[in-house]
Amino acid sequence: MAKNLVVAQSGGPSVAINATLAGVIAAAKEAGRIGKIYGGIHGVEGIQAGKLVDITDFSDFEKLKATPAMALGSCRCKLPPIEQKDAKSYQLLRHVFKQYDIGYFLYIGGNDSMDTVYKLSRLFAGEENAPVFVGIPKTIDNDLPLTDHTPGYGSAAKYLAITMDEIIRDTAIYNVPAVTIVEVMGRNAGWLTLAAAMPRFVGGKKPDFVAIPEVPFDEDVFVRKVREQLKHTPNVVAAVSEGIRDLSGHYVGSNAKSGAVDVFGHAYLSGVGKYLEGLVKREIGCKVRSIELNLMQRCSAHLAAKSDIEEGYAIGKAGVEAALRGETGRMVALRRISDQPYQTELFTVAIEEVANLEKLVPEKWRNLEDPKAVAEIRNYILPLMQGDVPQFRNEYGMNEYVSFME
Amino acid sequence: MAKNLVVAQSGGPSVAINATLAGVIAAAKEAGRIGKIYGGIHGVEGIQAGKLVDITDFSDFEKLKATPAMALGSCRCKLPPIEQKDAKSYQLLRHVFKQYDIGYFLYIGGNDSMDTVYKLSRLFAGEENAPVFVGIPKTIDNDLPLTDHTPGYGSAAKYLAITMDEIIRDTAIYNVPAVTIVEVMGRNAGWLTLAAAMPRFVGGKKPDFVAIPEVPFDEDVFVRKVREQLKHTPNVVAAVSEGIRDLSGHYVGSNAKSGAVDVFGHAYLSGVGKYLEGLVKREIGCKVRSIELNLMQRCSAHLAAKSDIEEGYAIGKAGVEAALRGETGRMVALRRISDQPYQTELFTVAIEEVANLEKLVPEKWRNLEDPKAVAEIRNYILPLMQGDVPQFRNEYGMNEYVSFME
Repeated sequence: MAKNLVVAQSGGPSVAINATLAGVIAAAKEAGRIGKIYGGIHGVEGIQAGKLVDITDFSDFEKLKATPAMALGSCRCKLPPIEQKDAKSYQLLRHVFKQYDIGYFLYIGGNDSMDTVYKLSRLFAGEENAPVFVGIPKTIDNDLPLTDHTPGYGSAAKYLAITMDEIIRDTAIYNVPAVTIVEVMGRNAGWLTLAAAMPRFVGGKKPDFVAIPEVPFDEDVFVRKVREQLKHTPNVVAAVSEGIRDLSGHYVGSNAKSGAVDVFGHAYLSGVGKYLEGLVKREIGCKVRSIELNLMQRCSAHLAAKSDIEEGYAIGKAGVEAALRGETGRMVALRRISDQPYQTELFTVAIEEVANLEKLVPEKWRNLEDPKAVAEIRNYILPLMQGDVPQFRNEYGMNEYVSFME
Repeated sequence: MAKNLVVAQSGGPSVAINATLAGVIAAAKEAGRIGKIYGGIHGVEGIQAGKLVDITDFSDFEKLKATPAMALGSCRCKLPPIEQKDAKSYQLLRHVFKQYDIGYFLYIGGNDSMDTVYKLSRLFAGEENAPVFVGIPKTIDNDLPLTDHTPGYGSAAKYLAITMDEIIRDTAIYNVPAVTIVEVMGRNAGWLTLAAAMPRFVGGKKPDFVAIPEVPFDEDVFVRKVREQLKHTPNVVAAVSEGIRDLSGHYVGSNAKSGAVDVFGHAYLSGVGKYLEGLVKREIGCKVRSIELNLMQRCSAHLAAKSDIEEGYAIGKAGVEAALRGETGRMVALRRISDQPYQTELFTVAIEEVANLEKLVPEKWRNLEDPKAVAEIRNYILPLMQGDVPQFRNEYGMNEYVSFME
């Protein structure tokens, strides 16, 4: 009898992760060799608790592709080291896999989620009738190695590029010196901030200043450059990664450093944007504002990129195909064949080469004054953020979404 | 010979203010009784300095309608009391009006801008050949009296409703108690926050908590309600106006109150969202995040509402018609005839009845537990946020905009 499949989502959300889920469901239905399709609610954590829903009959794929965040919910869960074969969580998972006759386990996620796939594939290695464990990448951070990029990044890049362009226009209206600091996600990798710099990379003048975590951040140089720039334009705009570090490797504006405390003496919650806002206010004294793009950069489905959504869907399908070929312990990845016309192919990589590793912006792309680097970055990012996605508006003009959690 | 017209923009930007500019230019060209059309750069401040550009031949109206912020730039400028007839700024304006043979002055703006129109109309009252001064409303805040609503509000409402819906989905993925506080613009009026509450008003469950400036905010009640709500859902979402005040009328989280200082002893910059984030962290101790929707709520042209843009355009045209009728010292306003089908008519009001006054959310709409109030609010806001606007994407997939400032 045909074995069943379970698919789940894990880690932080993105705009494309449900497109991948749609691809998995569609391919599993088409395959003809898979029994039931189960959605695991709240990732591997929910699966341990037996929270599986039967989604075999689901077919509203276009609406699912247009749904942000995770239709199956998520978790942040690190499984025990594989040496602890008898750990409670492994026992529970074995039990659920057996109970539901699971032959295929597909996990859509980022670095930590790939660690889960790796551990499970090792745990079951060599066992007869073991499920096949396949990882499918997603993360807006674009920091997974071996894949050209990760689904989810393209839509976040589109959001950042278009929103920065709108912010630049908004801040350009007054003839009064003013600095605007836009804080972008990215603890270690600057991929998202490079997307926020796109208005400049395609021929504009702003953002005037771009800071990524891969390049040590010197506050004095920043203040000097802002001051210099204010001689040429009344409106200076900076795009900075949340994870920029100073010359000695400490996060810029970390609580320890800013020393900010509230009336109760608790360390004040703040990000690098607020910190730099204070710095400019003190050192230059002009009007200054910081903007944190926050969750919107990862959940703005209304700005999803068609190329990203279609790729997310295709990679979900490829995950099922890899599972049917028995490729356990592997992750589907994207290889770029050409920028223009944009063309990629799908392949799989051993998951231990991906799990827990980060892909940073390469050395050659860190000097943003270098026109060659800028041209290459532009050619890399632009194809990923193209095209619009149909919106499913209801009678109120609000979007309709899919959820399997309710 | 036909007199010339000058049009300018003032105050804070919106997504619809350039649509109004487009309407002014289009109507002035069609009128056949107006000579040149000048755009005043940086509002009445730039006009004093003679910064006028000839836009008589401009015709790219659709692209201008899709451009956020202000194609002519803006200013924050309060003219002297009209008793000071010989003040420098009045002398300069008289000079420029004469030099450019201005017969019509159209000013697109909010409360402060209407004050400018009022003063100029008074200054020239009774003079032969005086220009006609007409005000055209815009403000995302929707706080101008006598008009059903203001152009710009509908697009901001659409941004807020759709973005809140996406944030609600994003925050719903983890099965861990968490509170998300979304800070919305609105110093005195809660109109924008009501739009952010739309996902609940159209049948959803969230945001769980909505706070507008018109209703005194009790921190203890807030904490108690959040705590209570966390028993029913792991993810509590609150929408709060930046201008909520406590029972004694002080802004919640104002610096004086939070007492936050940085390492240099300067008062720490923070908004009500960050303040409530700290409050929940201290009092409840669960995961908590605050989101400030910041400039995005007023500049997200990619989410402009068609009804808002078309109305902005129409009110611009009506401004020219009023000017041609010689209606000096008046503002164009909207009167709602019906909600379904949505229908309005344009008329004019004496500007002294508008200038420097604020329209707050009426008493009867302040209790959001009252289903009748919610239904009325929904019927009021929904027609304003309908429809999409074509985007002018260039070869890079970025938007093309119009600017007269370069």
